[in-house]
Amino acid sequence: MSTPPREIRLNAFAMHTITHQSPGLWRHPRDRSREFKRLPLWLDLARLLERGLFDGIFLADVLGPYDVFGGDARAAIRSGAQLPAHDPMLLVPAMATVTQHLGFGITASLSYEPPYLMARRFSTLDHLTDGRVGWNIVTGYLDSAARALGLDAQRAHDDRYAYAEEYMDAILALWRDSWAPDAVRADAQGYADPDRVQVITHRSPNLRMQALHLCEPSPQRIPVLYQAGSSSAGQAFAARHAECVFVSGPSASVIAPRVAKLRTALRAAGRDPAAVKVSALATAIVADTDAEARALLDDYRAHVDPEGALVLLSGWTGVDFAGIGLDDEVRFIASEAGRSAMENFTRADPSRAWSVREVAAHVGIGGAGPVFAGSAATVADAMEAFVDATGIDGFNLAYAVLPESFEQVVDLLVPELQARGRYKTAYTEGTLREKLLREEVLS
Amino acid sequence: MSTPPREIRLNAFAMHTITHQSPGLWRHPRDRSREFKRLPLWLDLARLLERGLFDGIFLADVLGPYDVFGGDARAAIRSGAQLPAHDPMLLVPAMATVTQHLGFGITASLSYEPPYLMARRFSTLDHLTDGRVGWNIVTGYLDSAARALGLDAQRAHDDRYAYAEEYMDAILALWRDSWAPDAVRADAQGYADPDRVQVITHRSPNLRMQALHLCEPSPQRIPVLYQAGSSSAGQAFAARHAECVFVSGPSASVIAPRVAKLRTALRAAGRDPAAVKVSALATAIVADTDAEARALLDDYRAHVDPEGALVLLSGWTGVDFAGIGLDDEVRFIASEAGRSAMENFTRADPSRAWSVREVAAHVGIGGAGPVFAGSAATVADAMEAFVDATGIDGFNLAYAVLPESFEQVVDLLVPELQARGRYKTAYTEGTLREKLLREEVLS
Repeated sequence: MSTPPREIRLNAFAMHTITHQSPGLWRHPRDRSREFKRLPLWLDLARLLERGLFDGIFLADVLGPYDVFGGDARAAIRSGAQLPAHDPMLLVPAMATVTQHLGFGITASLSYEPPYLMARRFSTLDHLTDGRVGWNIVTGYLDSAARALGLDAQRAHDDRYAYAEEYMDAILALWRDSWAPDAVRADAQGYADPDRVQVITHRSPNLRMQALHLCEPSPQRIPVLYQAGSSSAGQAFAARHAECVFVSGPSASVIAPRVAKLRTALRAAGRDPAAVKVSALATAIVADTDAEARALLDDYRAHVDPEGALVLLSGWTGVDFAGIGLDDEVRFIASEAGRSAMENFTRADPSRAWSVREVAAHVGIGGAGPVFAGSAATVADAMEAFVDATGIDGFNLAYAVLPESFEQVVDLLVPELQARGRYKTAYTEGTLREKLLREEVLS
Repeated sequence: MSTPPREIRLNAFAMHTITHQSPGLWRHPRDRSREFKRLPLWLDLARLLERGLFDGIFLADVLGPYDVFGGDARAAIRSGAQLPAHDPMLLVPAMATVTQHLGFGITASLSYEPPYLMARRFSTLDHLTDGRVGWNIVTGYLDSAARALGLDAQRAHDDRYAYAEEYMDAILALWRDSWAPDAVRADAQGYADPDRVQVITHRSPNLRMQALHLCEPSPQRIPVLYQAGSSSAGQAFAARHAECVFVSGPSASVIAPRVAKLRTALRAAGRDPAAVKVSALATAIVADTDAEARALLDDYRAHVDPEGALVLLSGWTGVDFAGIGLDDEVRFIASEAGRSAMENFTRADPSRAWSVREVAAHVGIGGAGPVFAGSAATVADAMEAFVDATGIDGFNLAYAVLPESFEQVVDLLVPELQARGRYKTAYTEGTLREKLLREEVLS
């Protein structure tokens, strides 16, 4: 008996900003990113993604400008590279008004907000969305954010994860234990039963809290927990807490061992390795024919702002690429860290020489993930191969042009994947967690 | 030449909770408060208020349970007295999707959130609402909130206002000075001009910040600033910063001197006293006839939960009313603080003796403000007299039954006020601030 093909799940990857993963593309004549700060774009996008049966929209966030490139934020300001960075959470209630099933994965750093208030925000959203929220737990990685919040620099990496563990203890206790499932009575006795609501006391080296949770139990009680860190501490954290993990890298050969390592860590932590859904960053450029898709990709690449791409790359790697000429060959970059960071992306085609400009143009469409360009059949082939080679559950799809990139996926790619029996044909009912844990309806 | 009659402005006063100002009324058969945690109630309410040309909806908030009564939160939990208290800000983007003019006044405490993140939330909302947000600046008054956030108790009252001044310096600088009005270019040079975006450095005794504002300039740049404190420090703060002030008290004779004092303080601070809009808490019960309105009010009062009312009263006054019998006469209460707090409310009719239960039933509809019950003509008479006696600009209307109380106002009272030339007949265009500063269109 052959096992049925694995379902491929899709999430949209976006951010409340002018430039997320494709710097310069806001200048493309069909791109709507300039409307990022107002609601209509997001309502249209939410409706489109639900029509395409996406699991959810995943909203990235940063709390400071990318200021590694050139040592300040000037290039980020000029290129709009993830700056402005408006609050992502405030988009969700509006998108919830026009959808019934779409999930909302929201990035929020635990470094600067007490668990008591964070718990309230997520429980409030879980009620307002009828149980469709997820929390992408980050600890922050920008010194600029730490300075904005009154510190000289961020905590050291491993200290951030130690604090994150204390934080999770406190916030999970608020969600799980403060209100019993049947605490709300709304009967002749009163609204809630005082014997079923309790104060949570938390005392750990860096965190004190003595609190009732301010919200009554929400449909999911705890938002679906997402994690995206790739460090050892991040992976250990994910093995303990995450229900969804995002990975990013330029090719299946980079991703496969990370997924295997994560599944091993899950097993070691006593969890079912298959219970965690893993999504890989990717961008799909889909057209009626391969030739049209290639022409689209060439058009998009021509709109990339190379400096904006290097701003992001500098922020992600910590290497300042400002001093390096765009036409220099990557293999001759003097700094070993810089060369190594760049060469990671040349693995997309190791057979030829790459200039800095070419890496920037490559990274400039969809960031650190692969780009699948072609007809629906070609892209579906590539995705199936990627999924089968890596053991991921699906993709976190970045965009080149907003919302055109998602329109291509919904209108062309999704029907192709459905025809292959690798994509759901309807949402199942229930909360986001229930949708993620159940097998969806394949045709 | 006679001056035209003053326009009367209306705001709705609500909270993201089961019980705001009228404890026990969630049990009324027509009340929809039990739907407080989901979106449809709020979307319906926003549409209704905009149909009634309300200036805005004003969302209260507290960050902890009322635990003065009986020394713990049990009675607040049982009665649902402002507990649960879900996040108010997250309602606003959803209500913005179904309205074009309604303003949103959001209560947010500056004691527990850094100015950098608070500035981002409000700027994000100001963009998403096209310039319709206001911030009700509070410093918090509950020890339970402080403990939830890792402190032993809240800061002393005057220290809270000293910190508030430091905070305002920092957050206003982010809003005013970080991005020049023309910083966003979105042209061939790039998205924004690095020479027109600057880091704000703030160093004061209790606050350090070195930050770019994360948001580009929003329609209002600074949310309309609301203040509701009645202490000396609160009034001084209002005189410096507030554009709208909320006052509450049981009668015009209590309110009038407060308004006069505020206008004097504004003059002393070099500001136009008329530029600040003052709204008084009140509740309107409107029906076709006075007799029907009185019957409605009797029905509502029969649903009041007296213990819930005392929970709120204990929280507001700091006096624990748990040990006092509901049938005791107020004038015989042993504690002077308790007697004085109660007697404040018996001023509604000083000619007779009041029991604790009667005060609770009185406060239990609409809290500390007056209740105007009658036909539209009767209520309009009472409101006109109150406005003319106090110099306020309008009312912050609490509800007995949600949304029935607001339906009565929109369908019966507003047409009566319009016929008297004391209520606008259309919104003016523009942001919330522009609407508040301009005279509205009276018929």
